[in-house]
Amino acid sequence: MQPLTEFSLIQRYFTQQQVKNPLTELGIGDDCALLSVPEGYQLAVTTDTMVENVHFFAGADPEQLGHKLLAVNLSDLASMGAKPLSVTLALTLPNVDEAWLMAFSKGFLSLAEQYSVDLIGGDTTSGPLTLTVQALGLVPKGKGLRRSVAQVGDFIYLTGRLGDAGLGLKIKQGYVCSQTHAEVALARFNTPKPQVQAGLALLDIANACIDISDGLLADLGHILKQSQVGARLDWELLPLSEAVHSYINETGDWSMPLIAGDDYELCFTISPEKAALLTMPCTKIGIIETLPQIRLYKSGQLQSLTSKGYEHFS
Amino acid sequence: MQPLTEFSLIQRYFTQQQVKNPLTELGIGDDCALLSVPEGYQLAVTTDTMVENVHFFAGADPEQLGHKLLAVNLSDLASMGAKPLSVTLALTLPNVDEAWLMAFSKGFLSLAEQYSVDLIGGDTTSGPLTLTVQALGLVPKGKGLRRSVAQVGDFIYLTGRLGDAGLGLKIKQGYVCSQTHAEVALARFNTPKPQVQAGLALLDIANACIDISDGLLADLGHILKQSQVGARLDWELLPLSEAVHSYINETGDWSMPLIAGDDYELCFTISPEKAALLTMPCTKIGIIETLPQIRLYKSGQLQSLTSKGYEHFS
Repeated sequence: MQPLTEFSLIQRYFTQQQVKNPLTELGIGDDCALLSVPEGYQLAVTTDTMVENVHFFAGADPEQLGHKLLAVNLSDLASMGAKPLSVTLALTLPNVDEAWLMAFSKGFLSLAEQYSVDLIGGDTTSGPLTLTVQALGLVPKGKGLRRSVAQVGDFIYLTGRLGDAGLGLKIKQGYVCSQTHAEVALARFNTPKPQVQAGLALLDIANACIDISDGLLADLGHILKQSQVGARLDWELLPLSEAVHSYINETGDWSMPLIAGDDYELCFTISPEKAALLTMPCTKIGIIETLPQIRLYKSGQLQSLTSKGYEHFS
Repeated sequence: MQPLTEFSLIQRYFTQQQVKNPLTELGIGDDCALLSVPEGYQLAVTTDTMVENVHFFAGADPEQLGHKLLAVNLSDLASMGAKPLSVTLALTLPNVDEAWLMAFSKGFLSLAEQYSVDLIGGDTTSGPLTLTVQALGLVPKGKGLRRSVAQVGDFIYLTGRLGDAGLGLKIKQGYVCSQTHAEVALARFNTPKPQVQAGLALLDIANACIDISDGLLADLGHILKQSQVGARLDWELLPLSEAVHSYINETGDWSMPLIAGDDYELCFTISPEKAALLTMPCTKIGIIETLPQIRLYKSGQLQSLTSKGYEHFS
């Protein structure tokens, strides 16, 4: 087989995609892509990298990897209340494995298609497997959901459930549970769903918002620090799946859903008056208080937690 | 020493920068940055990755690396005629080396400051040294300099000189020359200057444009292929430094400046009528013809060249 050149490689797997967004004036294939941003909107910009043996295991399913790489970036857009517009993809690959590329691009582009996201540019380089996406979205001017605007008295809410992805990771690391529970947990870990619709629905309603990538305590911690407030959380209010409950019953590790990352649910704060306007499925887990830091109550008892969730290099 | 966490690391080296661009509504530190795009403009988007042992040698000077990483991305904006606006930076680092980070951020942020480019977001991950930037710029609506619009009869021009960076690479690989020549060549290789002003000056004048990252033959080749035309080049017209002339005299390797990458000059095509409007320093090197591919003449003789410049995986 003739080795693929960089250009035919990109072309074969990533440029067959039709441009779906009318705001993409020039897609992949030139020095830059060109986009229009409609009046009254701001551009939301984010980037996330996934590295082999750090963010995923060597030999990870490439289709799931393509999905997850895009999902984690769309999740950052979701947490600003931005509508996804387009992405660039920087692929560093140890070799040209056509089967891998076909599956990876399938996972990536299928999710892109679901949200009408155009892949507008990229760079393919040779080296240790490292995947970076930058995602662009649109948010009505001045309406973006920031971390720094939580107010004392706000209720703290979560979309979806907490800890399923963390359980998925435990299973990957050897924890054994029922097949039903394993399927739920692994699906959440391997192919997270970005909460794009929820983010859009929170515009004009929520105050602060963040997505749970590094664990609830760490991510809510960013909201608290940047808003200069604290929070009270009640463990009994956490939305946990049967699978996670069963894991906790078996292991006693009740802090896992607070610390584990990768759930990609949104955590947001909202004034009690506006909470009545919420129509999406979500769960109240606590309240914003003046006193800094998080106070976690379990069975009415204040708990102490030292770990603050996963951080690189920590 | 306490290890730096991801957040304090990013904060210490990359968020001290003041936001310089009034279009940056929200900078680094939230899930997304928020930008305004003024009416009448399009956003130009590009991304480039540099990998250790592929794009730079292990142990490369981190300050030069920071400069070059940003420069190659600004060069892509320049080749569209876009004014640089802001960038995100995805850093994958094998460890937290504060001296390295301080020097790298100095090189990166000094160049950013020269062009009033804001660093608006990033991701820092642990893994093999891999650096990805995505750069955003502004171009007047519909005016972006594309690759696909070269016209038969257009003159082909180059900004600056060709082959100095290629000579710099040869020196890194062991070629020995005078110190004066080595200094010129290594500076061009290590700290290229993106041709941002030239790109802006070419709006409304040039037809097709590209930056020389992979070598003149490869990059001009993209213009020709996408414009469905060919070109005649005259070797004697190539703008070469004394250092490159001296290298060629000594080695006989006259094709080096055609094939070597990393010069980051602009190659553009322009109608003979509009060529009179050029006020920047640049050199005519050939002409666009109907017949596909490049015909290179040297001493009046048609030359054959097999190599098409550097491609990853080729």
